[in-house]
Amino acid sequence: MAIIDLNSDLGESFGPWPMGDDTAMLQIVTSANIACGFHAGDPAGILTVLREAAKRGVAVGAHVGYRDLVGFGRRNMDPSSAELVGDTIYQIGALQGLARAAGTSVRYVKPHGALYNTIADDARQAADVIAAIKAIDPSLVLMALAGAPIVAQARQAGLAVVCEAFADRAYNTDGSLVSRRLPGSVIHDPAAVAARMLRMVTEGRVTAIDGTDITLEAQSICIHGDTPAAVAIARTLRETLEAHGVKLTSFADAPHV
Amino acid sequence: MAIIDLNSDLGESFGPWPMGDDTAMLQIVTSANIACGFHAGDPAGILTVLREAAKRGVAVGAHVGYRDLVGFGRRNMDPSSAELVGDTIYQIGALQGLARAAGTSVRYVKPHGALYNTIADDARQAADVIAAIKAIDPSLVLMALAGAPIVAQARQAGLAVVCEAFADRAYNTDGSLVSRRLPGSVIHDPAAVAARMLRMVTEGRVTAIDGTDITLEAQSICIHGDTPAAVAIARTLRETLEAHGVKLTSFADAPHV
Amino acid sequence: MAIIDLNSDLGESFGPWPMGDDTAMLQIVTSANIACGFHAGDPAGILTVLREAAKRGVAVGAHVGYRDLVGFGRRNMDPSSAELVGDTIYQIGALQGLARAAGTSVRYVKPHGALYNTIADDARQAADVIAAIKAIDPSLVLMALAGAPIVAQARQAGLAVVCEAFADRAYNTDGSLVSRRLPGSVIHDPAAVAARMLRMVTEGRVTAIDGTDITLEAQSICIHGDTPAAVAIARTLRETLEAHGVKLTSFADAPHV
Amino acid sequence: MAIIDLNSDLGESFGPWPMGDDTAMLQIVTSANIACGFHAGDPAGILTVLREAAKRGVAVGAHVGYRDLVGFGRRNMDPSSAELVGDTIYQIGALQGLARAAGTSVRYVKPHGALYNTIADDARQAADVIAAIKAIDPSLVLMALAGAPIVAQARQAGLAVVCEAFADRAYNTDGSLVSRRLPGSVIHDPAAVAARMLRMVTEGRVTAIDGTDITLEAQSICIHGDTPAAVAIARTLRETLEAHGVKLTSFADAPHV
Repeated sequence: MAIIDLNSDLGESFGPWPMGDDTAMLQIVTSANIACGFHAGDPAGILTVLREAAKRGVAVGAHVGYRDLVGFGRRNMDPSSAELVGDTIYQIGALQGLARAAGTSVRYVKPHGALYNTIADDARQAADVIAAIKAIDPSLVLMALAGAPIVAQARQAGLAVVCEAFADRAYNTDGSLVSRRLPGSVIHDPAAVAARMLRMVTEGRVTAIDGTDITLEAQSICIHGDTPAAVAIARTLRETLEAHGVKLTSFADAPHV
Repeated sequence: MAIIDLNSDLGESFGPWPMGDDTAMLQIVTSANIACGFHAGDPAGILTVLREAAKRGVAVGAHVGYRDLVGFGRRNMDPSSAELVGDTIYQIGALQGLARAAGTSVRYVKPHGALYNTIADDARQAADVIAAIKAIDPSLVLMALAGAPIVAQARQAGLAVVCEAFADRAYNTDGSLVSRRLPGSVIHDPAAVAARMLRMVTEGRVTAIDGTDITLEAQSICIHGDTPAAVAIARTLRETLEAHGVKLTSFADAPHV
Repeated sequence: MAIIDLNSDLGESFGPWPMGDDTAMLQIVTSANIACGFHAGDPAGILTVLREAAKRGVAVGAHVGYRDLVGFGRRNMDPSSAELVGDTIYQIGALQGLARAAGTSVRYVKPHGALYNTIADDARQAADVIAAIKAIDPSLVLMALAGAPIVAQARQAGLAVVCEAFADRAYNTDGSLVSRRLPGSVIHDPAAVAARMLRMVTEGRVTAIDGTDITLEAQSICIHGDTPAAVAIARTLRETLEAHGVKLTSFADAPHV
Repeated sequence: MAIIDLNSDLGESFGPWPMGDDTAMLQIVTSANIACGFHAGDPAGILTVLREAAKRGVAVGAHVGYRDLVGFGRRNMDPSSAELVGDTIYQIGALQGLARAAGTSVRYVKPHGALYNTIADDARQAADVIAAIKAIDPSLVLMALAGAPIVAQARQAGLAVVCEAFADRAYNTDGSLVSRRLPGSVIHDPAAVAARMLRMVTEGRVTAIDGTDITLEAQSICIHGDTPAAVAIARTLRETLEAHGVKLTSFADAPHV
């Protein structure tokens, strides 16, 4: 039987500013990437979403980012290694503390935004994030972009890695994501998204943007919940997968990592 | 044999701005109250001082504060309970993570500045801090002002509490600190500071500002390291205590808490 | 002919987090209280709303607040006078700069949230805000709570003051606002809000929460735009006032300040 | 008679953390680049140094930086144009407001740290900063690295530009600064620094790191004040220049910009 994890970014509200529909998404996902306060999230709000995740049995990951609140961690930065190691440990530790208070625990680390994109192939910053994870808890799993150089780098360093696919993104023939600046990079049709991911889960393949078939192996699918339309896509995806007998379970609880 | 703990605030540098002489103080104190990033301290700098503390066997405490960097946590604020609970857990968790990476662990919590003063007798905010500590790790010790209402409140709630005296501060006859705004509130003479604390340790008494003797029972003495003069006072205090046979050990390692 | 100003808080988005419907509100209000970055607002977003305000001829005010982003400036703080004076000038100056770039100018200052409430009757902090306004531009008008002690204090100090009423808030018989914690403090019915404010504009009176009539003299009415319901109330208020011949003009452009 | 301006970075303290000896430097420099709160500086501290600058007749410039306090604006970032334009105007406006309150005015803009280095030859970010200056006050002078592409770009856009030399830095033969990572990049001998700058002022030439002579034309010399040694170098430089008849005047007050 096919098995897959669905992950999404949660806990991204800040102070008086809400973001996303965390309650709705916690009914859809099996893993929650929870903001740690550097690019989004405040402690009281994070604690609230952690309690909901604990109640629903959704696995929790630390969604660590650059220290850039106004830019939402989406702007490239060049922290020193000491800074990036420190910032990463600090964020994971803070989330671990809040998770403990909420009756759950942090199972994995998924870098966010510009940090996610940078460490996919920037070996120095990748090494800093890997070192940070190993320093605080080497049993934490790293969630990374399927096919990116960091996957091998992290495994080489002794970390468990889960690869993820992006439900609504088009892929190039080399397995990389089509840049958001190009037409066709984002797939908006819920049925198309669901069909693509169903095929990815069952066959390990998707159709690239040029029409050719490519291999895409992932243990988790990233979905969005920042708009009502995104929640609807996520819900359709989950229903489609379940209707086709795919079992939805967090990789953290699955035997195959 | 008399035994006492010496504690001081460390890790208060921020980015390019140094503060205090952490290396010197780690040779004097037995417990280090380490800033957690809200009123002072950045992750890379905190990690550095934690590593030094680990190397020297100095016990580590979380010096949690209000989220007020420019005000150094010295300005009164009125966070909601959800905010104060969340902020406190977040800071302790972050420091726990960094401590783990540094090969040590957080043993106690000492609130900082305006938060320290407020919770001494503000039962609501005190309850929030106590609840936060219990939620993240009920084995953490709370360090509090000797004689303040929070001591009983925290013990009632099941927390271990260590009471501290302030080495260079004058006391009123009711055991409270003389306000910094009044003349004579701060004692600048190293020998006088040392003699007062030696008597406090050995007799459990100090001379209050009006010349009368009062009882002052504390398991830790707070000393400062923010100026060369402060470091000199701290060093004299340590040497005086040792010369009189007082054993300096962190309360966290002592049997009597 | 009766004349009145409608003001609302705008520019409160921050980075990726939107807040309120600034475009809708700029079609309703005659004065825009624009966040200055300390409790809300980022420079790029502020500049955008300033350009829209300039295009529509809406008067611009500096909505200065405490330096407390996560708390949205709603938490009491006790900055020193040097801090409060500096923070107030800084925020006004920043908004003046952005306003100049947007082809408009700052006409008045309205403190926000906890600062607004505090200076209503805290003479020390009020004096700091007044001194700050005078230091940067004594021709700026202070917008304050009708009936509050700060009104006389600011006029005494030589500042022009505009008093405002709150469209959807109930009043006590002494002219103060009914606390939000009490039942009936907020009026939700658009027609009732409009009728109350029409009477305030034309008769200078409103019905207090105990049913008695009280005097309420204000040159501006504060309305909200943070929810679709709030925008609807604001629109109804404007239409009702106009239908009864009340002229809507910013006090900054009116002859009677 | 030769004439030159000496500039230095001031107002870089933040909250409880002092930086540099502003009082000493204000007796040496003729232009003060004052931090605007994004990479350093808090409003109360900035206001204090502005008052001192006003008293001593030192010209004031806005030392604008990336929004990166913990990194002191020294880390590369990639803000969007809307963000960089907004952030630059905001900072200049804030300093203008504080300068007005202090009885002086902002005469020029000198970007700081990573922003300074980036815009030297990154035409997009340079265009954003230039556009921001023109939008808030086109009479402001831009202070830039002598020989960098931004000099022509800004003049082309209609801004007045002042070029600066770095007193204690070695130059490559193409007029660029020797990277701080290379040996010999920083000159520590006060007499050597003074002699180099005297020659630069009187002959328009310096000796490059390979021993050849190069042309270096600058109307201002940047000196540091962050350590006692730096202050001593700055003082020696000023005394040497004066002893050789060079007149020290801010370019803002000089006729030749």
